[in-house]
Amino acid sequence: MADTNLSAVLFKKGDMRLVERPVPEPGPGEVQLSMRKIGICGSDVHYWVSGSIGPFVVKDPMLLGHECSGVVSKLGQGVTHLKVGDRVAIEPGVPCRRCELCKGGRYNLCPDVFFLATPPDSGALARYHVHAADFCYKLPDNVSFEEGALIEPLSVGIHACRRANVSMGKKVLVCGSGKCRRANVSMGKKVLVCGSGKCRRANVSMGKKVLVCGSGPIGLSAVVSARAMGASEVIVTDISEERLALARKMGATKSLTIATKDPAEAAQQVRDILGAMPDCAVEASGANFSVHMAIRALKPGSAFAVVGHGPNEIQVPIVEAIAHEIDIRGSFRYMNTWPAAIEMLTSGAINVKPMISHYFTLEQTLDAFEMAKSGKGVKVIIDCEKSAA
Amino acid sequence: MADTNLSAVLFKKGDMRLVERPVPEPGPGEVQLSMRKIGICGSDVHYWVSGSIGPFVVKDPMLLGHECSGVVSKLGQGVTHLKVGDRVAIEPGVPCRRCELCKGGRYNLCPDVFFLATPPDSGALARYHVHAADFCYKLPDNVSFEEGALIEPLSVGIHACRRANVSMGKKVLVCGSGKCRRANVSMGKKVLVCGSGKCRRANVSMGKKVLVCGSGPIGLSAVVSARAMGASEVIVTDISEERLALARKMGATKSLTIATKDPAEAAQQVRDILGAMPDCAVEASGANFSVHMAIRALKPGSAFAVVGHGPNEIQVPIVEAIAHEIDIRGSFRYMNTWPAAIEMLTSGAINVKPMISHYFTLEQTLDAFEMAKSGKGVKVIIDCEKSAA
Amino acid sequence: MADTNLSAVLFKKGDMRLVERPVPEPGPGEVQLSMRKIGICGSDVHYWVSGSIGPFVVKDPMLLGHECSGVVSKLGQGVTHLKVGDRVAIEPGVPCRRCELCKGGRYNLCPDVFFLATPPDSGALARYHVHAADFCYKLPDNVSFEEGALIEPLSVGIHACRRANVSMGKKVLVCGSGKCRRANVSMGKKVLVCGSGKCRRANVSMGKKVLVCGSGPIGLSAVVSARAMGASEVIVTDISEERLALARKMGATKSLTIATKDPAEAAQQVRDILGAMPDCAVEASGANFSVHMAIRALKPGSAFAVVGHGPNEIQVPIVEAIAHEIDIRGSFRYMNTWPAAIEMLTSGAINVKPMISHYFTLEQTLDAFEMAKSGKGVKVIIDCEKSAA
Amino acid sequence: MADTNLSAVLFKKGDMRLVERPVPEPGPGEVQLSMRKIGICGSDVHYWVSGSIGPFVVKDPMLLGHECSGVVSKLGQGVTHLKVGDRVAIEPGVPCRRCELCKGGRYNLCPDVFFLATPPDSGALARYHVHAADFCYKLPDNVSFEEGALIEPLSVGIHACRRANVSMGKKVLVCGSGKCRRANVSMGKKVLVCGSGKCRRANVSMGKKVLVCGSGPIGLSAVVSARAMGASEVIVTDISEERLALARKMGATKSLTIATKDPAEAAQQVRDILGAMPDCAVEASGANFSVHMAIRALKPGSAFAVVGHGPNEIQVPIVEAIAHEIDIRGSFRYMNTWPAAIEMLTSGAINVKPMISHYFTLEQTLDAFEMAKSGKGVKVIIDCEKSAA
Repeated sequence: MADTNLSAVLFKKGDMRLVERPVPEPGPGEVQLSMRKIGICGSDVHYWVSGSIGPFVVKDPMLLGHECSGVVSKLGQGVTHLKVGDRVAIEPGVPCRRCELCKGGRYNLCPDVFFLATPPDSGALARYHVHAADFCYKLPDNVSFEEGALIEPLSVGIHACRRANVSMGKKVLVCGSGKCRRANVSMGKKVLVCGSGKCRRANVSMGKKVLVCGSGPIGLSAVVSARAMGASEVIVTDISEERLALARKMGATKSLTIATKDPAEAAQQVRDILGAMPDCAVEASGANFSVHMAIRALKPGSAFAVVGHGPNEIQVPIVEAIAHEIDIRGSFRYMNTWPAAIEMLTSGAINVKPMISHYFTLEQTLDAFEMAKSGKGVKVIIDCEKSAA
Repeated sequence: MADTNLSAVLFKKGDMRLVERPVPEPGPGEVQLSMRKIGICGSDVHYWVSGSIGPFVVKDPMLLGHECSGVVSKLGQGVTHLKVGDRVAIEPGVPCRRCELCKGGRYNLCPDVFFLATPPDSGALARYHVHAADFCYKLPDNVSFEEGALIEPLSVGIHACRRANVSMGKKVLVCGSGKCRRANVSMGKKVLVCGSGKCRRANVSMGKKVLVCGSGPIGLSAVVSARAMGASEVIVTDISEERLALARKMGATKSLTIATKDPAEAAQQVRDILGAMPDCAVEASGANFSVHMAIRALKPGSAFAVVGHGPNEIQVPIVEAIAHEIDIRGSFRYMNTWPAAIEMLTSGAINVKPMISHYFTLEQTLDAFEMAKSGKGVKVIIDCEKSAA
Repeated sequence: MADTNLSAVLFKKGDMRLVERPVPEPGPGEVQLSMRKIGICGSDVHYWVSGSIGPFVVKDPMLLGHECSGVVSKLGQGVTHLKVGDRVAIEPGVPCRRCELCKGGRYNLCPDVFFLATPPDSGALARYHVHAADFCYKLPDNVSFEEGALIEPLSVGIHACRRANVSMGKKVLVCGSGKCRRANVSMGKKVLVCGSGKCRRANVSMGKKVLVCGSGPIGLSAVVSARAMGASEVIVTDISEERLALARKMGATKSLTIATKDPAEAAQQVRDILGAMPDCAVEASGANFSVHMAIRALKPGSAFAVVGHGPNEIQVPIVEAIAHEIDIRGSFRYMNTWPAAIEMLTSGAINVKPMISHYFTLEQTLDAFEMAKSGKGVKVIIDCEKSAA
Repeated sequence: MADTNLSAVLFKKGDMRLVERPVPEPGPGEVQLSMRKIGICGSDVHYWVSGSIGPFVVKDPMLLGHECSGVVSKLGQGVTHLKVGDRVAIEPGVPCRRCELCKGGRYNLCPDVFFLATPPDSGALARYHVHAADFCYKLPDNVSFEEGALIEPLSVGIHACRRANVSMGKKVLVCGSGKCRRANVSMGKKVLVCGSGKCRRANVSMGKKVLVCGSGPIGLSAVVSARAMGASEVIVTDISEERLALARKMGATKSLTIATKDPAEAAQQVRDILGAMPDCAVEASGANFSVHMAIRALKPGSAFAVVGHGPNEIQVPIVEAIAHEIDIRGSFRYMNTWPAAIEMLTSGAINVKPMISHYFTLEQTLDAFEMAKSGKGVKVIIDCEKSAA
């Protein structure tokens, strides 16, 4: 194979360069993929800008990119469910398959997971990538490579909605129309860029300056997922009217622009707008304020999935959570979401395309990252395919 | 109150007459309702024609009718969540509220339930009816009285789909686009009229002549419920192409006209048409054949809700059910479905109107029952309101 | 009935007096009870000393006492499952039976519940009390009235263990061998008396002075419940070695005396002593420190029931809870626990008697409350029966 | 390694011989085990006598034996959680780890599972065996190799009890104190040997001669599992008083010797003896009669795990199952049971030793199989270790 493998290597913090690398060969149970579309996540920008997220530190050269699709270009030994030429979406985390959590059906919590673009594990932002075949899912003809790439953030929303027990006829509260995944920002800290959106110090929570950082695709994914699960009402809260407008365009039935510093007041506004207490909630903003607001707004006995990463520690109105038996459920990544996501995309029940704001080629990777960092769009897509010319 | 209460009294088997009765007064926690629309169920026809269903025997004069809507005309003591003039849908079963099953959250299984039109409990086919206020649910303006009445059969479908673990992206098998509720028919017996549809001896199952009786609204309710819960595919089976056409019109994505006597062959056809094993199933035909077919078609680990009443005893391929850990779950009536149903009707996510085939006035009740018995329609509606003229 | 009804009336904060009152008559669905044993709860002492707990304020004269047993002395209309002379344990909360939460199977969350000794609802500390018959449970001959009274705190433990998904072979962490129910104490505040045990400023959490108040019966109830559910290991933490000794006597297999201010360090000690990560946890201390410690100690994917009331708001390590998908579940009172509790007491699988430290007569009620307030015992029991002499 | 590997090879139906074979070497992720104790299962005897069970046919020479323990004698590449000399119990089924069912947490349903002693997969009845390391579980010092081997049948009981929602304070019905796993016998057929017990034509069910075959360890495993999960009452039914005596010795609190041909009558007897309706049930007899009886005996809303394999098809009283919303749940093998089983054995909460009736050496394998076939005992154990002499 005389082909080359142009790759966007992050050598160290702030130093990402396009270099040619050998084309990787698939081992047993793996496939080689000719990569197509890759979405830039807030965490990608963060590793590029800051070199680390919490305990995950870029020490050796690695690739970024974990929201991706491709075409099968070579089969490793024993792979039978795919063939060369198949268009696939890639689930980025490959668990150990052997631990108690994997065997117990919660592989997203596997402590030994390989996860694309999470140091020391490298990502997929290159012409070619090798991946475990059973974490590559065949795309129907009417699902584009862009959509295939966006199944990753969509899956975060689906998983969170499942954790929140969203179901038919329920009224769902989504806090934040975006979120800053893995940003690990602490209370009162400034954060540069999250998702492809704007981050600002929200100054809204409990007398302390807490960050609401959003406009990324997780809150929007929760909105479309909740609607597809039959939620009759989805109310979204955010501090940005612009983001809420996109959330409504994508299926939210109600919205609330947060303008108070009092979570209890905001909770009452949620109930007033909805004409009811929400039946479940997804926290996708990472803001302490939102967690407070949600616990105070929710119907007793509700499930509340917290997916947005903000400060390491937050204040929780625990007596209220006890008296109303609110289940505060951490929601981490996803598991077994790709098949359902593909079903919903191919049937048209979910449309993620409105999230896409910009396209770049693999050669333009640095421009793409600058755009993502600028916060001018929602989701920036990189095309990894070699242009015909 | 000088008003009179025209009522369709079933004096005994085959003897139903319209008589004037006193207008009932609401007790504490009850409301008096000026009745609006009432749908005729297969069980209503059965009590009229046969005088009994299983252990439920018409001994004293009683009313039929348990699919109903009305307008609140008087409040009993302590009722605060409704007011006179409110348009409501009626949940027909009022449980004891005190037994282990009521307290445990499964009031549909209460052994002391009062259930409209189930002897010795009388029904609501009259100008006025008194009912427990908390089992009357306010209808939004854009949900009609007809739709309010149809929430009852719709609820059977919703409950069965919940029992079957229907959720987003799942592929659902609905056996029978109709069913013969409570008909209690036994294997090889002839049955006259079920639902408002045709019953025939299906002659399809396991070398024995078993009934597939359908065209009632339960299978159709399961179809619309499953779609509203996010099912990506709903395949319906029946022996009548006409009924399947209605099922497809109402949201089924695939259908199979049963033309074989071998359940295993039909199961393979289901898998072939679907391109996959169904993830869950609802049995709404009452046919032993369908139970066989579903168990053989389902994906291992599936839930299978059996709602269709056919013969008292059926043959089950138990070794297959064990080896694939199929959960065969009886599904009885419903609980806590009205609020969700109203949400879905008002938002337009569920449309039950295509089920309605005929309208009659309360004075025309006997004509309505003859039509229902004839099997020429799907759902016959009686208007209980006194005409203005 | 010429009998009199000696009652311990709390007229206002600090003013409880024994007065004769009329013997109450049972209404429909109720029974009149000749009271036997009543346990004093920390909340009883709190209302007596402080006149309020959070939003619940003593405004009118009322009785205390909600952990109780008695003998049926008269039947109200319609009561058939009990007869005069039956020995019963009393579930103190009678829900409305009509709201969405009651119908949905979570009657403990009913917003309109009547709950003994929670203002404005009066308690049962008297010779006679009238109660909803279906919340009175017949005691087997070998279960004493004391044990019948203690089913109330035991139920809090059972419910919390159910919320925590305790099951066979699991390793359970119980934080606090006691707790201060409803004390509603806030961070840094001094609290006088909780349960029948000692409260002190624990000075253990996150650099702030937080209360660990315990030695009441809830943690111990969680211990015996967890063992009866098949937990193979139950590790209990507390700051008092004395309390831990009682916990071990009652079934805890391991214990940790908290001697550090760092929750992460304590979490590691829990894992070291257990030789594993706990599979689930019950927080029964009300201390923020314990919540931190538990979240850091638990196995990923665990359920964590928080039952202990401490400060209104606490700090939660949310990023850890998200990354490990810990479910933080408020656990409030109980539902459907009496039948299981009675089964376990009659079979001997649960023994609550070691909790009882003191006995008093109804006439000695003030002495009993002084003892409870002193913190010298664990559970103080009042005998409401008129002595033969 | 000059050691030899004496193996009991089943060449074809009726032809099992001890031969020397090469000692197998462990591959990556595997361990080589010096085998210790192996229990003979009814299926082992069946393959030896009949050469097949249902679709599983002995075509090539293979080993029997899937209830086993051993000592780690060599580590394959990458194995870190075990070391040479570790005493382990072996879970016999190794799933593919890649399919939807494995990833979904139900690996027991994996269609590509490798399962010891299920043709074409060979068993472990030899001096040495190589197995996936993560399906070998370290035994505590106080759990013997015999007990380690019996974790396999115990796991079937644990899994069934989990499927049946057994929990604290519940009353459990176990049908059959034994069962004939995989015997796949059809109605009216004679079956030679099942488990290590007696099989006979029970002549009890619905006017047809159906087999109740039992005395194997599955029913007994369900009994000890149910008690360890906190069941307050376990009633066991069987046609053999002798087997029921063993069941009572091992923890059953009640028993019923089936002496009627009418399942409804037997169901009433169950309720009478128990003084209540059972809350859940495990079918471990494989008899259609038992399924009928259980459905009629169970409390509405119950779960009923069916684990016993009898005829391929059985009659089910479906209308009763619907009206009472009984969940009939197939229970197949087990998943994630070894850790819990080891916890219960090491703590003494479960004792399986009373099941063991006979011991043989590996050299005496044919005698051991003759004994198992004779039905004179319950569980026959083979010691695979080379005697010191």
